[in-house]
Amino acid sequence: MKRIDTNSIARSMEELETRFGDLGPVKERVKAHEIETPSWGYSDSGTRFATFTQPGAARTLLEKIDDAAVVHKFTGAAPSVALHLAWDHVDDYGELAAYAKEQGVRVGAINPDLFSEQDYKLGSLTNESESIRKKTLDHLLWSIEVAQAAGSTVVSLWFGDGTNFPGQGDFRRRKKWMQEGLRTVYEAMPDDMRMLLEYKLFEPAFYHTDMADWGMAYVFCLHLGDRAFVLMDLGHHALGTNIEHIVAFLIAEGRLGGFHLNAKKYADDDLTVGSINPYELFLIYNEIAAAEEDPNARADIGFMLDQSHNLKPKIEAMIQSIMACQAAYARALLVDRKALAAAQHEGDIIRAENLLLDAYQADVRPLLAQIRIESGLDPDPLAAFRASGYMKKVRKART
Amino acid sequence: MKRIDTNSIARSMEELETRFGDLGPVKERVKAHEIETPSWGYSDSGTRFATFTQPGAARTLLEKIDDAAVVHKFTGAAPSVALHLAWDHVDDYGELAAYAKEQGVRVGAINPDLFSEQDYKLGSLTNESESIRKKTLDHLLWSIEVAQAAGSTVVSLWFGDGTNFPGQGDFRRRKKWMQEGLRTVYEAMPDDMRMLLEYKLFEPAFYHTDMADWGMAYVFCLHLGDRAFVLMDLGHHALGTNIEHIVAFLIAEGRLGGFHLNAKKYADDDLTVGSINPYELFLIYNEIAAAEEDPNARADIGFMLDQSHNLKPKIEAMIQSIMACQAAYARALLVDRKALAAAQHEGDIIRAENLLLDAYQADVRPLLAQIRIESGLDPDPLAAFRASGYMKKVRKART
Amino acid sequence: MKRIDTNSIARSMEELETRFGDLGPVKERVKAHEIETPSWGYSDSGTRFATFTQPGAARTLLEKIDDAAVVHKFTGAAPSVALHLAWDHVDDYGELAAYAKEQGVRVGAINPDLFSEQDYKLGSLTNESESIRKKTLDHLLWSIEVAQAAGSTVVSLWFGDGTNFPGQGDFRRRKKWMQEGLRTVYEAMPDDMRMLLEYKLFEPAFYHTDMADWGMAYVFCLHLGDRAFVLMDLGHHALGTNIEHIVAFLIAEGRLGGFHLNAKKYADDDLTVGSINPYELFLIYNEIAAAEEDPNARADIGFMLDQSHNLKPKIEAMIQSIMACQAAYARALLVDRKALAAAQHEGDIIRAENLLLDAYQADVRPLLAQIRIESGLDPDPLAAFRASGYMKKVRKART
Amino acid sequence: MKRIDTNSIARSMEELETRFGDLGPVKERVKAHEIETPSWGYSDSGTRFATFTQPGAARTLLEKIDDAAVVHKFTGAAPSVALHLAWDHVDDYGELAAYAKEQGVRVGAINPDLFSEQDYKLGSLTNESESIRKKTLDHLLWSIEVAQAAGSTVVSLWFGDGTNFPGQGDFRRRKKWMQEGLRTVYEAMPDDMRMLLEYKLFEPAFYHTDMADWGMAYVFCLHLGDRAFVLMDLGHHALGTNIEHIVAFLIAEGRLGGFHLNAKKYADDDLTVGSINPYELFLIYNEIAAAEEDPNARADIGFMLDQSHNLKPKIEAMIQSIMACQAAYARALLVDRKALAAAQHEGDIIRAENLLLDAYQADVRPLLAQIRIESGLDPDPLAAFRASGYMKKVRKART
Repeated sequence: MKRIDTNSIARSMEELETRFGDLGPVKERVKAHEIETPSWGYSDSGTRFATFTQPGAARTLLEKIDDAAVVHKFTGAAPSVALHLAWDHVDDYGELAAYAKEQGVRVGAINPDLFSEQDYKLGSLTNESESIRKKTLDHLLWSIEVAQAAGSTVVSLWFGDGTNFPGQGDFRRRKKWMQEGLRTVYEAMPDDMRMLLEYKLFEPAFYHTDMADWGMAYVFCLHLGDRAFVLMDLGHHALGTNIEHIVAFLIAEGRLGGFHLNAKKYADDDLTVGSINPYELFLIYNEIAAAEEDPNARADIGFMLDQSHNLKPKIEAMIQSIMACQAAYARALLVDRKALAAAQHEGDIIRAENLLLDAYQADVRPLLAQIRIESGLDPDPLAAFRASGYMKKVRKART
Repeated sequence: MKRIDTNSIARSMEELETRFGDLGPVKERVKAHEIETPSWGYSDSGTRFATFTQPGAARTLLEKIDDAAVVHKFTGAAPSVALHLAWDHVDDYGELAAYAKEQGVRVGAINPDLFSEQDYKLGSLTNESESIRKKTLDHLLWSIEVAQAAGSTVVSLWFGDGTNFPGQGDFRRRKKWMQEGLRTVYEAMPDDMRMLLEYKLFEPAFYHTDMADWGMAYVFCLHLGDRAFVLMDLGHHALGTNIEHIVAFLIAEGRLGGFHLNAKKYADDDLTVGSINPYELFLIYNEIAAAEEDPNARADIGFMLDQSHNLKPKIEAMIQSIMACQAAYARALLVDRKALAAAQHEGDIIRAENLLLDAYQADVRPLLAQIRIESGLDPDPLAAFRASGYMKKVRKART
Repeated sequence: MKRIDTNSIARSMEELETRFGDLGPVKERVKAHEIETPSWGYSDSGTRFATFTQPGAARTLLEKIDDAAVVHKFTGAAPSVALHLAWDHVDDYGELAAYAKEQGVRVGAINPDLFSEQDYKLGSLTNESESIRKKTLDHLLWSIEVAQAAGSTVVSLWFGDGTNFPGQGDFRRRKKWMQEGLRTVYEAMPDDMRMLLEYKLFEPAFYHTDMADWGMAYVFCLHLGDRAFVLMDLGHHALGTNIEHIVAFLIAEGRLGGFHLNAKKYADDDLTVGSINPYELFLIYNEIAAAEEDPNARADIGFMLDQSHNLKPKIEAMIQSIMACQAAYARALLVDRKALAAAQHEGDIIRAENLLLDAYQADVRPLLAQIRIESGLDPDPLAAFRASGYMKKVRKART
Repeated sequence: MKRIDTNSIARSMEELETRFGDLGPVKERVKAHEIETPSWGYSDSGTRFATFTQPGAARTLLEKIDDAAVVHKFTGAAPSVALHLAWDHVDDYGELAAYAKEQGVRVGAINPDLFSEQDYKLGSLTNESESIRKKTLDHLLWSIEVAQAAGSTVVSLWFGDGTNFPGQGDFRRRKKWMQEGLRTVYEAMPDDMRMLLEYKLFEPAFYHTDMADWGMAYVFCLHLGDRAFVLMDLGHHALGTNIEHIVAFLIAEGRLGGFHLNAKKYADDDLTVGSINPYELFLIYNEIAAAEEDPNARADIGFMLDQSHNLKPKIEAMIQSIMACQAAYARALLVDRKALAAAQHEGDIIRAENLLLDAYQADVRPLLAQIRIESGLDPDPLAAFRASGYMKKVRKART
């Protein structure tokens, strides 16, 4: 975390270009890579055992927008903020969008709230109670209105629906309700809106989850139409799952809609991106970079952070995570795809693997610093934010 | 393993009927429940560390048929034998079918061999080599001919295809090859033939498997047509996966084609059915029983054992497993579905769960004994087989 | 959940005795089996996503005692209540003990609170801050005083201590603090007090936990002395762990102090006992039953429920769980150990396994009903509780 | 895999020294880091589904020694070869040691064979049969003689012992036999010999393993004495296990004896080191580097590769793995431990984590190239080996 010196950057860039050729295209693609931050990542959070407070954490939606704007200001890569209707209530979402615009950001995906109320204890769209299913639908339809009012074209649905014990629910009956409910919502969406369906293996339901894996989310998308896409949260899989393979598979099917980026070691730990296995993050970006270069692949994918900053300072954790994503993406862009395809074709496993490792082991921090300088940013966003005095200010103001 | 006494059976049946009502329909359904045994389960097997030999284990395909026929003779529930083209070669499969018929069984699913040869080291249908992909196709097309010759209407495909290291293969290119290859095979099938696609998370490939989960198998089926179905091996999931939920989901989609029954504690352990979590086996059968009773559900499902009897005597392990399946199915048939639906609707979780447990905890062994007696079988197939002297005979003959 | 009829019980008992011999000793041992309930299981709980309220849930420590007493009244098996110092504060624990006694129960294990306060955000006994370590110690020493005042001889320690990210903490430095802190507490215990150390793989810490597995808890016990024991929570292991093996191993080492009983499918799901794999629960009890019959084994083990009744009614969930434990224990007591040892010695795996299954598949509900009748209890505690009107009363009183 | 140019190395070294200070000590420590290769890694291997042959793979023990010597020749880091008594039989182990010496290597750890024979089907030291336990002991005692004859001071024990089904074995009886047997072996060891005990969660036993985790291996060591140590195979844990924590814990207890280095994604996949999560490998080395710098820690640890090169060419896979270890170790040596301790003490999680990442993200390949040049080696051992013509030669010779 020493301040980066520009001579060193220049020298390192030369080294990198010697090895990987012209970095101009890499720089352009990294500059164009946008990562949405979630409003809920700026306020206090915790585990089921305790909620931890951080002095200066955002208390209101406007404060969250302010913090998101600061993240964008220092990284240049986070121009939108996802809203969550569990917490982000205002009377006029058009006004909110205007406020966000003034701060330099825009409203991103709208996330309805299908879990926080007592009514949802036994499910929302798959609840046995017709009136609760109706309430859920009303909320979902309203969330489309919110999106329209706020100028967003994405509704992102995550259901806590599921059961805790064998026998508690009827899997097929619940599936039917899910399918029918989603259809109603889908049909209410304006033509330019996309629906993202997020799957999760478990939690808060501990026996079964109605949309438990990518396959189920995919089937629901199929039943809806071509504006329904699967959203992958990196922490929502069983241990051992090859996530990058699913990424590639969904891209091949044209159904990967977006990511909730975070990291896990055990369950849905919601740690900051890349903190447990940065190579896996690279391998995910490697699939995305490859698809972007493939005229036959469709890769219109949203990137959103979704982390629970229980211990790390929230704004810093956002900046750190965005930097981790950029580093993974930059490395993926360094992969020599022609040589890789050749090594794969020849069955030269070691060479193929080493071509990935060649890119992965490259130290891309000088490259990212250079990109930031070219974009008028501080080469080290985290240090710059720390030096900015913002936290000191909000710690005083938000008490 | 005391010999069952018929008075005790009668008394216990009375008790059961008092609690669960007329057991006639249960008996009919259990009697109609067929479980295929695999030819490869009758010969010596092992782990990568050692192959263990059992005196008397079948050495030839005809001996495997003989053993399968014995399992059917004692259980009355295993009228068909799956063949595996890795090992089960004969010149004339029509003759083989005739031999099987003489022994009292028939040929079941045909399993092509896509893993045992050196050529398949880097994959079969997804191999980078066009000639190996061609060889694979030829083998698959031949397996359709084998099925026709042997009077079977099922080809059951499991691919060892995958990679061991990041970079080794291109996920999307491999998916395309898989899709195209399967299409050619599918189109070659006669109209009355079904294709089963078996997924597996890992092993023998340890980084990625081309058909890794039910979602992938399902997508391949969709691309093929309505005679392609997903085959679920109980040991092919990540730990924690809710298998019975996937069963119900696939039934709802009309795409569950069959099971490879076994048990696991860790990986694809291939232990005997029900040996690790018999309640989970019951919950799986519970979904099947429920679907059978639902006029809107489609449940034309094949049940096949696929176990690796490294330590247990092979024929005994088959008999024990069939008995475990029958017990799980019988219990599932005892579930009071009306009361269950009512408890679910009322959100009475404990009552719903206890309705399952009521059936699960019932001791159905007397019921199964009664069913066997009515079918002219010994009430205790395992004891009867042990007493039959068959092993003694084949241990002498097969040396 | 039909009311049990006494004729049926008598007939079933006869059947059981025919198969398993004199059930007198089994009945005595089941009658002597005590299961502690936790005060915190009677009040509202939830997940990190929402806390769910149940009308009539206990709001105060006295109400929790009342509910625990009701559980004991209907089951006859839950004479003690564990207290948790995160919530269970009173001025005079002697008075509390007297109140409990009046209700028919006693105070059980004392659980200090080492996680709920902001100070513990970065650990308690392993916190880098000396003053927080000191505060932790003071609390632990106070918990010994609470135990003495309340007439309890058990302090049961669970630490949320751990880290969320690589680098956050120094493993060995933290281990040293843990060891030193525990020593101070251990030395302050009166001679008749036992210390239980509970391990947990993860949560609320998501990178490492300072006492992550039984091995670590065991090592800390060794460093303390012979009144320190390992406490096993059934939900605190990695998936795939053979829990019954650890039970046997710790018994052989004389270091198994107790259980926190619950069930899991994924992580520390805290579901009700036996709800996911009742056979595993049986296998655990099987080890305990075997050790009780072995003059060379030491098995002074406490049994405590520790579940999170987010969805199930709390008192009912306790009763259901106690019944599940009793059923598992009763089945374990039916195992023919001599025959089992013989089958093991002969390498007859199927017979050995079937001897366990013989006991496991026995329907012991009539036996348990009979035991309850002999103890002056209702044969069906759950139905009796539902019929008692208690919930109606407290739902009105506790608003 | 481009040939490294020495100017580039010099420039990169300067950059590294600017950031991390004098690299002299790092170079010394990397040069001193020895990694043993296993004789069994040079011959054909496979999975339970197929054994894959590689042209040129070693067929005899002498050929394995030759290959190991080549690995040492190109890396300068693999001066010893572990032997496995399942396969490595010669009449005179003294002669073998002399042969190895001539090739430039020495005999390392001796690994007895406790799994490959039919006799061990139901266990070796924990077998119910006294004569098989005796046979096992004889083999173990002989392996000590082999070690002495070959000039080795390490016997490294891995047991396949365990069971496949509940009931098959008696956990505590087996533990007793394990303990007694190990004692006999331990007492037969000369004073300068170390015993390493390797644990494994599962496989080839699929229900329980007699030495299933580090805690059990640790307990067996305690019962033996201070020359018994735990050996950790990186692939032998449940998914989710924090391995680096166990490393630190065992170091703190003075009981970490060595590693079997490899990588896993699912089970005991035996992939090449660092291929799945290279950050985890770095974190493990980070604990070792820290311990080496701590006068109070004891870290006399053996590093051994133990991989199954089913698909990768064997010698190349060894070289690649050694390079991966060196890179991980070099990065770990770059960690600024003083700054890290300070950040930990201040609770600055992001700074602490970034201090690790600073070292991890450094591109140490130029540093390793420089180290090799200083040692008279080719800076790129893999390319040099490929260019050497060795494989061409042995492919011709070994047919």
